[in-house]
Amino acid sequence: MRPLLLLLHLLTLLPLVAYAVTSSPPSLLKASLILLPSTFAYLLTYFSIPFISNFLLKANMYGLDIGKRGTPTEHDKVPEALGIVPGTVWILLLCLSLPLLISTHPSLTLPLLSSLFTVLFMLFLGFTDDVLEWPWRVKLLLPAISSIPLISVYEGSTSILCPNQLTWIFWTPAGGLTNFSTAVSNFITAYPNSPTNLIDIKYFYYLYMSLLSIFTTNSINIYAGINGLEVGQSCVIAGSILTHNVWSLGKGVNVEGSWFSVALLGPFLASSLALCCYNWYPAKVFVGDTYCYFSGVIFAVVGIHGHFSKTLLLFLMPQVLNFLISIPQLFKIVPCPRHRLPRYVKETGLMTVSRREDGGMNLTLINVVLKVCGDMKEEHLTMVLLMVQVGFSGLGFAIRYGGGSSLFFNEEL
Amino acid sequence: MRPLLLLLHLLTLLPLVAYAVTSSPPSLLKASLILLPSTFAYLLTYFSIPFISNFLLKANMYGLDIGKRGTPTEHDKVPEALGIVPGTVWILLLCLSLPLLISTHPSLTLPLLSSLFTVLFMLFLGFTDDVLEWPWRVKLLLPAISSIPLISVYEGSTSILCPNQLTWIFWTPAGGLTNFSTAVSNFITAYPNSPTNLIDIKYFYYLYMSLLSIFTTNSINIYAGINGLEVGQSCVIAGSILTHNVWSLGKGVNVEGSWFSVALLGPFLASSLALCCYNWYPAKVFVGDTYCYFSGVIFAVVGIHGHFSKTLLLFLMPQVLNFLISIPQLFKIVPCPRHRLPRYVKETGLMTVSRREDGGMNLTLINVVLKVCGDMKEEHLTMVLLMVQVGFSGLGFAIRYGGGSSLFFNEEL
Repeated sequence: MRPLLLLLHLLTLLPLVAYAVTSSPPSLLKASLILLPSTFAYLLTYFSIPFISNFLLKANMYGLDIGKRGTPTEHDKVPEALGIVPGTVWILLLCLSLPLLISTHPSLTLPLLSSLFTVLFMLFLGFTDDVLEWPWRVKLLLPAISSIPLISVYEGSTSILCPNQLTWIFWTPAGGLTNFSTAVSNFITAYPNSPTNLIDIKYFYYLYMSLLSIFTTNSINIYAGINGLEVGQSCVIAGSILTHNVWSLGKGVNVEGSWFSVALLGPFLASSLALCCYNWYPAKVFVGDTYCYFSGVIFAVVGIHGHFSKTLLLFLMPQVLNFLISIPQLFKIVPCPRHRLPRYVKETGLMTVSRREDGGMNLTLINVVLKVCGDMKEEHLTMVLLMVQVGFSGLGFAIRYGGGSSLFFNEEL
Repeated sequence: MRPLLLLLHLLTLLPLVAYAVTSSPPSLLKASLILLPSTFAYLLTYFSIPFISNFLLKANMYGLDIGKRGTPTEHDKVPEALGIVPGTVWILLLCLSLPLLISTHPSLTLPLLSSLFTVLFMLFLGFTDDVLEWPWRVKLLLPAISSIPLISVYEGSTSILCPNQLTWIFWTPAGGLTNFSTAVSNFITAYPNSPTNLIDIKYFYYLYMSLLSIFTTNSINIYAGINGLEVGQSCVIAGSILTHNVWSLGKGVNVEGSWFSVALLGPFLASSLALCCYNWYPAKVFVGDTYCYFSGVIFAVVGIHGHFSKTLLLFLMPQVLNFLISIPQLFKIVPCPRHRLPRYVKETGLMTVSRREDGGMNLTLINVVLKVCGDMKEEHLTMVLLMVQVGFSGLGFAIRYGGGSSLFFNEEL
């Protein structure tokens, strides 16, 4: 495990270095604005976790590893909610680099401040959830309200491409506007003779951004439960987005947005990797809802203010899939126990599909993978799931950079 | 108690109504931007506290009332950290009114966003402190860093008046600049022939603002420990500031700053009063460090972005006094126990001066008042301390509006 992690850590430096080299003119100041906070984020997180773990244990914030039942370590107290460390470190480092960031990029002041607020709010909600175990309505309502500052300072486009199959709704064959178009123009504006089938969906776009931030915040949290999965998937997603951003910067496309995203995701990836060292199998700490909410909302924030929210969803395909699979349980159509993670079989030492009280399988992507690939050890299961995540990222890149759809994902629209 | 509280609640509406009437032209939109969130803040806080108390008790977040030792209720579990309710309610209501606030006052966008962040950060720090009991270095370092976003978007003046006794340092008798003035002009700029002895202290002003926010955040927290005192003093301070703001609005002085302050303090005062209903003697809930940090930082935020930080300090005189009295214990010159609150005497039913292990009195303003006025019941002690707070507010107004010093406090400088 250790050499693999080290390799991963070195790999993450690549896009950052690539950015420093490809930016024209190569900008040492800009590169150091990312490299320095990232390095500090890694070191601070790595060395603070044992210290903060003691505080959490003293406050009785610990869990037993359900995946270790029947092994000698099943009664070990594992400190919980350690996501508070990368979260707080990230917030503090962003605060410290803020004066330099906004003096070099004044246009990013509002996105940066609103992002800081929204991320902190989710960190706060996550930690209080770990302490107080909120009901579901709180977990859906509060993210919606806390996304208001984020989207009220949104300055990007609110237009999307109308799919070819639906253009007849808005345009006459001659290219003029239909009666329907004219009637709804206060809410959805179609432009006559638009060569790209652009429609401005205005308020619906704000609704979409709000829903996006609720989705990403919760999607990591419901695709979790085995050692290293929450942090692992977040690192893969962050790595994919960073690669996409560096590619954009190299091509000179969506420069401000990509730069914003890199500045936020660099320290995030670094502190997540430091947390991963402790959360990887066998886990010495649990990350808690605190980390899941924190990482989820970061993706929403960079997707929205970085103006690549549709591309973002490509890298979240496993999370979307897991959400779709989970719907019958989330909406209580079939019974949903408090924990849906796979079951550890003492006799074989392997993880197996977990079942509901009515005998059916718990509907999660993890169980689907176990059903397809057969029972396996917990550390192998994490690796397989992360490989699935990497595979989907590859597919995402193929879709994003495949010629036909590049217009749909155009970040400069 | 109840009729008194009700009277207080009605009194707080006065400045808001006064504002609606005095603003010219009388603005219903503006008034409703304060009255509506304030009303919601009161109701939401009032009705959420019993609900959230259950969550806190379930998570073992409760305390025993040290002031009730030896009475039948001494073993009652009192839920702790209820400051999370007014804090979260305030944040959510500000988020909800943000779009309207920034569309009517675009210049307040940056102050509002940065204030939301800094207040939320202190709420987060306060709650984690109630759960994890941070060491002192954390409680001083983190507020300093989290004030960076607040002060990096500060757009007011960084000049202060040089006291008459020190003008010889910067100006020659003829009104020109001294050699010293010229030498330090990169850090402190004095203007030649300045009629008002103005000096621009630049970075030192940012340092001052950062220190101010650390001070206010902690000053409420160290002047606490008996039922109703934390919330009570915060309400008196908030009421004093609101009165000052409405006076300024009526005179048309510092309009944007005063409006900013009223918009933030209205919902704060309302939610604090709702909390007071539960925290007043005999306390059914404790407010925790969560509330002390939350209320402390709100005062810093409105003082800084409302451009009346020096006037603010006038209303915090009892807190400054308590801090000065406490210095020997805070800096460990004499022993400092974890709790310094006065001692309940079972035989008399009165509160009395509490003593350190070495026999000396714990150095707090509460103990000084007890020493001067003699032992008294806990509810009377709270009332006396709040009367002291009101008295100092009166003194503050006298200094602020007394002719001689109005130049020093000039908010338009």
